[in-house]
Amino acid sequence: MVTDQRDAGRRLVFSAIRKAGRIARVDLARITNISAATVTSITAELIREGLIEETGPNTEGDLRRGRPRVDLKVRGPARYVAGMKLAYDTLTVAVLDFEGELVSESHMRLSRVRHSAEELGPLFALALDQAAEQGGLKRSDLAGVGLGVSGTVDANNGVVYWSPGLKERNVPLRDMLQSHLGVPVFVDNDANLVAMAEMFFGQGRGVSDFIVLTIESGVGMGIVINGELYRGARGCGAEFGHTKVQLDGALCRCGQRGCLEAYVADYALLREAATTTDFNDQATAQEKLQSLVEAARGGDQTAQMIFERAGRMFAMGLANIVNIFDPQLIILSGERMQFDYLYADEVLDSIRKSIVQIDADPPEVRIHKWGDLMWAMGAAAYAIDGVAEIAMQQIAGHAA
Amino acid sequence: MVTDQRDAGRRLVFSAIRKAGRIARVDLARITNISAATVTSITAELIREGLIEETGPNTEGDLRRGRPRVDLKVRGPARYVAGMKLAYDTLTVAVLDFEGELVSESHMRLSRVRHSAEELGPLFALALDQAAEQGGLKRSDLAGVGLGVSGTVDANNGVVYWSPGLKERNVPLRDMLQSHLGVPVFVDNDANLVAMAEMFFGQGRGVSDFIVLTIESGVGMGIVINGELYRGARGCGAEFGHTKVQLDGALCRCGQRGCLEAYVADYALLREAATTTDFNDQATAQEKLQSLVEAARGGDQTAQMIFERAGRMFAMGLANIVNIFDPQLIILSGERMQFDYLYADEVLDSIRKSIVQIDADPPEVRIHKWGDLMWAMGAAAYAIDGVAEIAMQQIAGHAA
Repeated sequence: MVTDQRDAGRRLVFSAIRKAGRIARVDLARITNISAATVTSITAELIREGLIEETGPNTEGDLRRGRPRVDLKVRGPARYVAGMKLAYDTLTVAVLDFEGELVSESHMRLSRVRHSAEELGPLFALALDQAAEQGGLKRSDLAGVGLGVSGTVDANNGVVYWSPGLKERNVPLRDMLQSHLGVPVFVDNDANLVAMAEMFFGQGRGVSDFIVLTIESGVGMGIVINGELYRGARGCGAEFGHTKVQLDGALCRCGQRGCLEAYVADYALLREAATTTDFNDQATAQEKLQSLVEAARGGDQTAQMIFERAGRMFAMGLANIVNIFDPQLIILSGERMQFDYLYADEVLDSIRKSIVQIDADPPEVRIHKWGDLMWAMGAAAYAIDGVAEIAMQQIAGHAA
Repeated sequence: MVTDQRDAGRRLVFSAIRKAGRIARVDLARITNISAATVTSITAELIREGLIEETGPNTEGDLRRGRPRVDLKVRGPARYVAGMKLAYDTLTVAVLDFEGELVSESHMRLSRVRHSAEELGPLFALALDQAAEQGGLKRSDLAGVGLGVSGTVDANNGVVYWSPGLKERNVPLRDMLQSHLGVPVFVDNDANLVAMAEMFFGQGRGVSDFIVLTIESGVGMGIVINGELYRGARGCGAEFGHTKVQLDGALCRCGQRGCLEAYVADYALLREAATTTDFNDQATAQEKLQSLVEAARGGDQTAQMIFERAGRMFAMGLANIVNIFDPQLIILSGERMQFDYLYADEVLDSIRKSIVQIDADPPEVRIHKWGDLMWAMGAAAYAIDGVAEIAMQQIAGHAA
C-alpha cells in the first residue's frame, strides 16, 4: 500500500511537471499536495531515470524573488513519439520529443480514400520510417505512436467501430498496428486529438473547459472538462456530427436520418448542389466544393441557399451544445474553416439567438485555422500521454 | 502553505467519509493518498469538533478480517439542514441531519403558480418553521437551506436568470432569501438537485457518470461526470429542455422556437390538444392533461397523435444526449413519469435506433418515479455540501 502511494505520488508529480512546462520543487509540493521531502525524493528518482532534468536558474525569477531558483522540466530526448492523422486522402506524420517539441514531419498522398485495415500497417510503417529518418531517427527509436481516425472510436480499447476511411467495421486497429509496427500504438477519434492539440499547443492552453468543433469531410467534436478530454462511458462520446437536427431528415452516411453531418458536411453540400449543377465528373470533391463556394460568392442563389441552410443548421447544432455544456470557449478548428459560410456573422449571430438567454455574456467562439500537421501533433500529444504512463509503470517495476 | 495543505487534507478526508458513509482510517489513507499519521491527526480533530464519530466495530468485517475494526462516520446531529422544492403549485420541505437522514417533511399548497421574488421570503419562512417544528427543531437550528428552482440558475452566485415560477428575471435569490431567513441558502436548478438526490439517495449511487432527465411542467436535465454535478462555465449548463429539435419550430415559453420543451412539456401538449378539444375552463392543467391521456388510451386518434409526436421528439432529444455524453446510465426521474407515452417501448426503441450504432450495448435507461419529497431531499443534500464547506472553513479558522 505504501508502494501504491509512492506510485500515485510519482504520477502526480510527473504529470504536474508535464502540464507546467517548467516548475520549481516548492510549487510542485503546493500543487500536488505532497510534502516537500517526498517531492525532493520523487524528483531525484525521475532525474536518475532520465525523464526530467533541472534547467538553469530563471533569471527573471532570481531578480524578482532575490534568490536562485532551479526549475524542473521534462527531458526532451528521453523519449520520441509520432502522431499520425489519416485525413481524406493524406497521411500526415509529426515526430515529437518528450517535451512536445516538433522534431520532423512528413506528408504522404494516398491513392485512395477508403482502405481495408490490412492495408494500413504497411502504409503507416512507410510513413513513420520517412518521418523518423527526417528527424535523424529510426522507427525503433519511437516509444509510441498516436493515431487520429475520424468516425466512432473506442479509445480505451483501440477499436474503430466505424470510420469513413475504413472498409470494415469494428476493427481492433490499435492491436493490429501495434503488432505490425512493433511500437505501442494509441488510437482515438481525430476530433478528440484536435482538442488535445488545442489543449497542449493551441487556443485551449490554460482553459479548463472548452469544446473543439471541426468541419471537414465530416463534423467532429472534442470536449475538455476540468482539463481532461471527456470520452464518455464507452469511450465514444462527443458525437456531434450525428446528433439529429431534424426528425426524419436528410439521409446521412452513417445510415440514419437527420444528422447534422447530413446538412453541413462536404458530401451533404455536394449532394444538394448536384441537383441543379452539372459538375465535371473528373473534379475532386474538394474542387467541386470550391466551385460551389465561388458560385455562392458570385451571386448564384441556389448555391447561396445551400450554404445558408447549412449555416443555420450548424448554428442550431452549436447552440444546442452551448445549452448543454455552457462552455467558456468554443474553438472552431481545422483547415476547411476557410469556407467562411459556417462562421459568417449571420451564423454566429444565429447561435447567440438560439442559446438560452441569460444576463451574462455568451461563450467566446474562436476560429482557428490550422492544417493536418496540428491534427498529427494532437495525436503525438496523446502518444506522449501513453508513453508517460508506460514510463511510470517501468519505474514502479524498478522500485518494487 | 503548510496550513493550506492541512486544510486541503481535511477537506479530502471529510469528503471521503461523507461519500463512503462508513469507513476505516486505513481505507481513508488509501483513498485520499494521505499518510496514515496525518489521517489519524485529522480525524481526531474532526471528532473533537463533533463533525464525525467512531461507530461500533463492524461485526461482519471482524469475522472476515480477523481483527477489530472501527469505522468513522459523519455525526448526524452535528448539523441540520432543510431542502425545498418549489414545484408548480406546491412547496415541499425536507429536513435532514448531517448524515442525510430524513428528520421531517412538510408540504404546502400554494394559491398561485408564479410569485414575485419578494413574496418568497415570508412563504419559505413559514414552510421552514413548519417543517423544523415537526422535527422538534427551530428554524435557527438549521445550518443551511437548499432550494431547487426550475429554469436557468447560476448556482455559483445564487442568481435565477429565469424561472417559470418567478415573475422577475435575473433575481439574486440566494442573497434575498439569506437575509430574510437568517440562514445560509444554496440555490440551484431543480433538475440538478434531482441528479444530486439520485447520486446520494437513489439510482445513481456508485455510478460515476450518469444523466438524469425530468419531465414535469418543463424538461430538466442534470449531468453527473466523475461523481460530480456538471454545471458548465457560467453555472447554468444542462439546459436540455431548450435544446432545439426543429429549425423555426414550435414557440416555447422561453420566447424561442423549436425547443424540446415546446413539444413535450405539459403546456405544449395542452396547446396542441386545445385545437381540437373543448376543455372545461375550470379544470387545472393537471386535470386537462389527465383527460388527454385517457382520451389517447381510449383510442382518440388526435390525442394519440399528440403523444406520438411528443414521444418521437423526446426520443430524438434523448438520443442526441447519448451521442454527446455516451453515459453509462440515463435515469428518467420524476412524478409525471406516470404518463407512460414518453417511455413507451416504441420511444425507447426509437432512442436506440437514433444513437450512433456501435458494437456495444447502448446505455441503460431506468425509469424512476418519485415525488416532490425526493426533489427536496436533493436540495437538502446540496445544503449539506455547502454546510460541510462552512464547517471546514470554521475549523481552518480555529486552527490558524
